[in-house]
Amino acid sequence: MVSPLAVIDRVDNFTYGSTDNCYLLVAHTDNVALGYIHPTLVDHLRAHPGFTSSGRSISINASYDTLEKRNQLFEQFALELKSKPELHQLVAKGWRNELYTVYNPTHTPYFQVERAVSVLLGVVTYGVHINGYIPENKSSNGKLKFWIPRRSATKPTFPSMLDNTVAGGLGYPHGIWETVVKECDEEAGLPQKFVEENAKSTGVLTYIYQTPDGGIQPEVEYIYDIVFPNETEVIPVPQDGEAQDFTLMDIDEVEQRLQADEFKPNCGMVIIDFLIRHGYITPENEQFYSEILARTHRRLPFPTK
Amino acid sequence: MVSPLAVIDRVDNFTYGSTDNCYLLVAHTDNVALGYIHPTLVDHLRAHPGFTSSGRSISINASYDTLEKRNQLFEQFALELKSKPELHQLVAKGWRNELYTVYNPTHTPYFQVERAVSVLLGVVTYGVHINGYIPENKSSNGKLKFWIPRRSATKPTFPSMLDNTVAGGLGYPHGIWETVVKECDEEAGLPQKFVEENAKSTGVLTYIYQTPDGGIQPEVEYIYDIVFPNETEVIPVPQDGEAQDFTLMDIDEVEQRLQADEFKPNCGMVIIDFLIRHGYITPENEQFYSEILARTHRRLPFPTK
Repeated sequence: MVSPLAVIDRVDNFTYGSTDNCYLLVAHTDNVALGYIHPTLVDHLRAHPGFTSSGRSISINASYDTLEKRNQLFEQFALELKSKPELHQLVAKGWRNELYTVYNPTHTPYFQVERAVSVLLGVVTYGVHINGYIPENKSSNGKLKFWIPRRSATKPTFPSMLDNTVAGGLGYPHGIWETVVKECDEEAGLPQKFVEENAKSTGVLTYIYQTPDGGIQPEVEYIYDIVFPNETEVIPVPQDGEAQDFTLMDIDEVEQRLQADEFKPNCGMVIIDFLIRHGYITPENEQFYSEILARTHRRLPFPTK
Repeated sequence: MVSPLAVIDRVDNFTYGSTDNCYLLVAHTDNVALGYIHPTLVDHLRAHPGFTSSGRSISINASYDTLEKRNQLFEQFALELKSKPELHQLVAKGWRNELYTVYNPTHTPYFQVERAVSVLLGVVTYGVHINGYIPENKSSNGKLKFWIPRRSATKPTFPSMLDNTVAGGLGYPHGIWETVVKECDEEAGLPQKFVEENAKSTGVLTYIYQTPDGGIQPEVEYIYDIVFPNETEVIPVPQDGEAQDFTLMDIDEVEQRLQADEFKPNCGMVIIDFLIRHGYITPENEQFYSEILARTHRRLPFPTK
């Protein structure tokens, strides 16, 4: 059996309290911190007239006192970053043409920013992850099975790794459930009616992921389960090229591939959460049970949706 | 609809970071904090030759270097407290003749102590909470129903309040699953075979409860669901007097009674967790969704099992 804590360690890998060296993006008022700025972006923000730097805080200037003004500021800043050859790998290559919303402490939208730049600002980002599964009593070998896609080799992040059945970021202006239905259609060709009748909201995972190059990404992933009636009646089929193919894997194979680090890290965490909720991982077979639950429901240090 | 966050606020009511005035119980070595001492106990610990006080830390003396020695220390200390008339309400009246285990940072037992005293030492305590429910498709009115007991009027804590179907503390030397089976039998007369076939581990809740008199109780509650086949075939029946009676309540009634504060606080939290896991409370109908999940899976500041 794979060590679930090892799977979590690959995702929630930002140590508690290790913020001494971090630069903070700060709101235009009330000194509210919004994100841990990627080291590469610090000098660009400092040099930009829309921001003021003080110690390890970089604040949005007080004049940006409306959502519209802040959106213009971040649109212009993002385009500036996109044009810089030295940031090609970090910004232009990962450009999505998709806006992510950043929230203020009253849970209302504070600004929208290009997805590729949001992760560099270290603000909280949101997504949905959906477990498509066949329960033991409907599986041909009596074992729990998941529909597992392999990510396209051309994806800017984690190409060719294994993923959850369906997953996607929460882009502006789409709602959470709307995103579930949309992504199930776009990524896997699952009919809306099937999704509406079989998908169930089951929780949310929150954690802080530190990228190999020092970026810090606080993430909120809304979790849904979709139970499939059997192995043949409804099957996911790649539609938009995000997934290369879908394979039905039983729990033993999923565990082997988790162990072999073949899953995109946060997708491994989503599977561990599934196995906990469905009684496969229990406090009696997993010594770090409560630690895993706390690490996967981490209180984030910034305002959230 | 009841405000789920209000239900959580009644349980996880110890503010993050508000530890400046707390006295800490500290292990005999490595300066490991084990609990937040109840204000009433501080002078008793200071006066006891087995402990050394320094600032806001009260440490077990270095000579208590084995489990057996520490067990003897706490047995003698607990009996001393029990004999004090001024502590009658807090100690003697709540005496359980049941030992709780305190763990060290390597998750091994560090000492055992009488349950009534453990909560006054503010150490982490453990329990199991079990939701007995009838799913919508097997319910006579098509609504989710829970078997809800009313606590006996003679219980030392939260008499006559509503509870989860079965719940109990994890007393030494019983294991978690063993406690599930034992409590289902003792409190509700549920046959072992029924429990083994229908109960499923679904997670753990961790939170810090502050009592009205200033006690601080970090708690770990292992959560199980038991699905009942229908409303008549298997029914819980009071056995040991812990529960006064069991009532089948549909989700509307449970919500009304949660709103009216009729549930023991942490049992209300367990129901909120159930409603989240089963898709009744979703990120679209609950604005504090991720906050609730983080608050109910709080990282505790002390070593745990």
